[in-house]
Order: sequence, then C-alpha cells, then structure tokens
Amino acid sequence: MTVTTPKGFLAAGVASGLRRSGRRDLALIQNMGPKSTFAAVTTANRFAAAPVVYTRKIAASGYAEAIVLNSANANACTGPQGDADTLSTAAKVGECLGISPEHVAVCSTGIIGRPMPMKPLLSGVELAARALSPDGGSDAAEAIMTTDTRPKNVAVNLGSYAIGGIAKGSGMLAPELATMLCVLTTDAVLDPREADEALTAAVNESFNRIDSDGCMSTNDTVVLMASGASGVKPNADEFVAALTRAAHDLAEQLVNDAEGASHVITVKVEEADSESGALAVARAISRSNLFKTAVYGNDPNWGRILSAAGTVGSDVAAYDPADIELFINDVCVSRAGVLASSPDKVDMSDRCIEVRLVLHSGPHAASLLTTDLTHEYVHENSAYSS
Amino acid sequence: MTVTTPKGFLAAGVASGLRRSGRRDLALIQNMGPKSTFAAVTTANRFAAAPVVYTRKIAASGYAEAIVLNSANANACTGPQGDADTLSTAAKVGECLGISPEHVAVCSTGIIGRPMPMKPLLSGVELAARALSPDGGSDAAEAIMTTDTRPKNVAVNLGSYAIGGIAKGSGMLAPELATMLCVLTTDAVLDPREADEALTAAVNESFNRIDSDGCMSTNDTVVLMASGASGVKPNADEFVAALTRAAHDLAEQLVNDAEGASHVITVKVEEADSESGALAVARAISRSNLFKTAVYGNDPNWGRILSAAGTVGSDVAAYDPADIELFINDVCVSRAGVLASSPDKVDMSDRCIEVRLVLHSGPHAASLLTTDLTHEYVHENSAYSS
Repeated sequence: MTVTTPKGFLAAGVASGLRRSGRRDLALIQNMGPKSTFAAVTTANRFAAAPVVYTRKIAASGYAEAIVLNSANANACTGPQGDADTLSTAAKVGECLGISPEHVAVCSTGIIGRPMPMKPLLSGVELAARALSPDGGSDAAEAIMTTDTRPKNVAVNLGSYAIGGIAKGSGMLAPELATMLCVLTTDAVLDPREADEALTAAVNESFNRIDSDGCMSTNDTVVLMASGASGVKPNADEFVAALTRAAHDLAEQLVNDAEGASHVITVKVEEADSESGALAVARAISRSNLFKTAVYGNDPNWGRILSAAGTVGSDVAAYDPADIELFINDVCVSRAGVLASSPDKVDMSDRCIEVRLVLHSGPHAASLLTTDLTHEYVHENSAYSS
Repeated sequence: MTVTTPKGFLAAGVASGLRRSGRRDLALIQNMGPKSTFAAVTTANRFAAAPVVYTRKIAASGYAEAIVLNSANANACTGPQGDADTLSTAAKVGECLGISPEHVAVCSTGIIGRPMPMKPLLSGVELAARALSPDGGSDAAEAIMTTDTRPKNVAVNLGSYAIGGIAKGSGMLAPELATMLCVLTTDAVLDPREADEALTAAVNESFNRIDSDGCMSTNDTVVLMASGASGVKPNADEFVAALTRAAHDLAEQLVNDAEGASHVITVKVEEADSESGALAVARAISRSNLFKTAVYGNDPNWGRILSAAGTVGSDVAAYDPADIELFINDVCVSRAGVLASSPDKVDMSDRCIEVRLVLHSGPHAASLLTTDLTHEYVHENSAYSS
C-alpha cells in the first residue's frame, strides 16, 4: 500500500551516508511507463530551494521518468552551487537508469543553507538504482523521513487502476505546503494537463488544509507520476476524488505525526458567507499560539477561540459576532457571543479535538487540521537546527 | 514619572477584591482640567469587550473627566449584561466624583467570558475615589497589572508641559494592539481632533510595532487625556514626537516583560520598496514559531529567517531573493541568498537580539519588537486560563 502499488513503478530507499546515523536517506522512484506523465505543485516560498526551482521546469515539460529524493540536506539557500548540484544529481540518475536527465525530478529536505555533500549523494544514487524493485515503496517512504517518527504510505484501489503515495513532513506544516515532500503515483492513463489539474485540486483540499505551526518551507513539493500501465483512462471526477482521498490520508498522517503535538485539532467554520472567509477564520484560530497552548493544557478556552476568530476583518468574512455558536467536542460553549454551557463539560482528554464555529451568515464551510503548541514542540525546534 | 506627572491629574490604585490575592486591581484617574480632552485607539478585534464598545462612544464625544480600569476580569464575551455592567461602573464613578457618567471612560482586562463581579468592583470605585491623589499614578500602574511582573510607567518632560503614562500587557501582545491597556496624560492644551491625530500617530509607531505572540485581544485600549493645566498650546509635530517617545518607551517595557520571554528581538527590514512591504516581511519573521524557538535555543538560524521572509508575496514586497543581506547581531550571516559568515560567529547569549534584513530594493524601512518562544510561554499559557 505505497507508491509502488500502482503498476509500472519501481522504488528504492537506501542509506547513502548523508546521515551519519546510517539511516536510509535517499529514495529513487522510477516510472516504467508506458507513459511518463508528471505534474508537481511546489512551495510559494520565495527562497525556494534549488531542487524546487529545477523540478518546476521538469513539471512544465509534463514528463519525468524518475524522481530522486534525499533527506538530511535541503539544498536551500545554497545559490548557484546548489543549482549545479541538483543538475549533477539528475545527471547521475539519468546515467544509472539509462534515461535522459531532463526526465529526472529532484527533491530535497533537511537542513537549510549548507552545501549538499555530493559524494555520498551520488554514490547513494548508484546504490538506489541497483536496489530498485516493485516492492521498494516502503523503503522509499522511510528514506525521506526527517523528524518524522514513522513513514507515511497510502494506496487507493479503484478496481481497474490504483493510486499510491508516500509523504514526509512533521515540523513546519503549513498551507501552501510545508517542509513536506509527497510523491503520488498512478497507473491510470493521464496526459500532463489532466495530471496537473487533478493534482492541483487534490492538494488544495488536503495539504493546503493542514497547518501545524504556520511555517511554509523552502522545499515543499508534491508530485504526481502516471505510468498508464493499467491501460485505463479514468473518469476525471472519479480520479480527482480518489487522488484527493489519497492526499488527504497522507495529510492526516502528517498532522498526526507533527513535531511535539499532543492533540490533533480539527477547526471547522460553518455557515459562512464564503468558503474563503470560512477558511480565513479557521486559519486565524489554527494559528493562535494562545489557543494552541490552551489545548495543550486541556483547557477548552473558548474566549481565546473567539478572540482569534475576531482578528479576521468583516471584509474577509462577514458575520455578526453576536450571532455565532461555538462548539468544542460537540459541547456548545458559546452562543450569541456569551457563555452557553460550562466549559467544564468539555472532555479534552482525547488526542483528537474538534472546534466548530457556526457563523450563521451563509452556506459555506471550511475546515483545517492543526495541532497544539507543546513543550515538546519548543524543545524539538530550539534544539534541532534545520 | 507616571500618569500623574503632568499637572491636573489625580490617580489611585486600590484592591477592590476582584482578585482573591488582595492585590491592587482597580485604578481610577481623574482629569481636573481646566480641559477634559479625551482620545482613544481601541482593538480591531470583532469580539471587542463591552468596555471597549462603550469607551469608543466616549472617545467619539472627545471629552472624558475620568477613566476607571480594572484587572482580573475583561468583561469580554459577556453580552448585554456586560454592557449594563459597564454603564453601572461609569455611573458609580460619576456619582463618587460628582461628574456626569457620560464623561467617564471604562477599561477592563483579565479573564474572558465571565460576568463581572459587580459588588467588589463598585465598592472598589468608592475606595479609589477616596484615595485619589496627585501621587497616585504608580498605584494605578500596579492595579492594572495581570501577568505583568512589574508596573510600567513613563514621563516625558518638555519644559513647559509634560506627558505621562502607564501601561499593562504581557501576553497577547500584537499589533493592532494586544491585551494591552495604556493611559497617556498631558497638561498640554489640545482639542479633541488634535489629541486623536497625535494618539493615532503615536500608537502606529509604538504599540503597533510590537508583536510578542501575534494574538490581538478583545480589550486593547490606549487613551490620551489632556488637562490643559500647563496653559501651553504645543507645537503639533513636537507633541506627536514626544507622545510617540512616551508610547514607544511603554511598548518596549511591555515587550521586555512579555510572558515567558528569554530574548527580546528587534527585527529590522531595510531598503524595501515600501514601508508596508518592509513591515509585512518584519511581521512574517516576528511570527515564525520556528524562528522564535531557534532564538530561544540561542541558534542564529538564518535559514528559518529567510524561509519566514519568503512567505510574503512579491506583490506585497518586491525584492530579489538572490540580492539580500541578513545580519544577526551585526554579523552578516547570509548574502545573495547563501551563507556568508559562519553563524557560529553570532553571539546569542545577550537578552537583546537584532535581526536586520536588507532587501536592496528601495529606500523604505520598518522595524518590529518581538520575543522568543519559550517553555515558559507554553507553561504560562497552558496553565493560566484567561
């Protein structure tokens, strides 16, 4: 149930030596065709890393036969040397697999601002090329982990074709993606335009709806590779729905494994006058450190939720603050802007918390997944240099 | 050197019993005139507390002879009862001082969503009215403290007239103000329009330039009371500059006392194409939890600073990511988007840290004060219900 579940894909995950620990740190995935359709959605961060800038060009061509991903070093803020190193990496993959380097995508994650150690990386590519196998998906998922505590895999079987995927990411999860790499594969028959549209739609409803610490990274990349090996041309709507399901499953796995989180929080904003307004209010709540620390303390602090919601202007989300309802774990804690039930009735002991704010101003809704702000988050991010 | 330094003001700070600890919790400040000019800048939060909504009306009239401020209870998210309680409070002040309740402003800070305990509040007003004195400013500064560890006072002497002030605030510091109350006084002669313009300008360059945890509160209020007791009509520019100096001094005191901070960080963005763009970039850096935890760990993590800056779109701040310089405590850690000096050269041991990002794209600059994100912040905000 991984990136090699759909037909036409080989994968490997090896220890190149980028990590001194000897853990797997390099993943290679090859699309054996007959088609090599490729699409990517990448970070909006203006300090986009060298492999991101490079992979955007590959995606613009619509085709890639392989993708190589490394952890431990992000090759970000590395200037022209970073660009040259990315090209060398692609060239090495091309050489090992006997394909054009122009059909090789590259992703990196790890520490920012340090030159890529090319010697272990290039020998790792050789190792991975020899290790490619139809069962290598889960090794690849392991190789892209950074502070993740577990690998993330998914597969959706649609009978005549399948979708698979791997992802990594645990800190810096935020919309418009977040030190987050994801490779989705399918054996459906897609042309580049179809792949691009489906991927954009799926990312928008999945990875762009998680927000663990509001930080968008320099390296975020989600790609879709379509081999066409099933011979099945999918129904477009069905495919988008299935791809969204796979992406959403991986996004949930990311939030569940977010750095130092003790609660996973679903923030739902309902009956808003627009979806974008609902999303802005959900985002404001998801990013309130005061709210997130309260959840860590098992405190159903509804005042902090309303206070965070209230920072979004009426030009963005029109509603009457005196006509709202706020539920925490299905207990209505506030109605019409004042206390309803006692917050003492809210059981915060479960790992999953749901906040639901009903604005009574229209038919639109949006929801986000976030996490609490904990001592472990502070510890991990003050001690770990990335 | 406080709110009673300018001529024409009496103040008191008493223990009304709102706090079970017996600490001072109620402040009263009376403007003895001859003028009673009054201006206020209040929170943009849409769940503005009852006293905020009320005090906006007083400020619209341009006149107030007294202001009463309580800590312990914010009277926020308290609905029509909250409005009625605010009116009763103003009425009680009017009765005790023999003035019209329509010339009494009200501010509250403390826990959100609980009805105001009116019995101690009203008896506290009586107590405070009897305690009013020309030396009562520092008692008033103490009475408005919540999680502040020390009172905040200021005075600026301009020879022929003076400006004084008190403030409170320690968590939830953010622009557009932040559970932050501030009373500025002057014995200069100002009409309401002059007072309002000067206050707006001063707040914009002081309280709106601090951002400890990005959270904007329901109760933030800054007021200016002008007695005219000096008989001096000030030069407008000189007055705005002096008022800004007083407000900035108080803002710095607030950041220095921010909940659980171990570093105070100045974020300067220079050579930007617009002031608003510079401010947006400074804000993005100031709000990055990854950056703030790194500073807590004494890690001059320049990659996280660029990564945060890079989240601001080129429509907001136009610059070339390959043509920037980043200084931490005057060490140039990154130039042209890559490593310059080794971050090891940066001494992070001092409490004050300066981050300076030079965009090389225009003549504009902006700076913000923020704090690091620490275990103490998480502890204080997960344990303290506000």
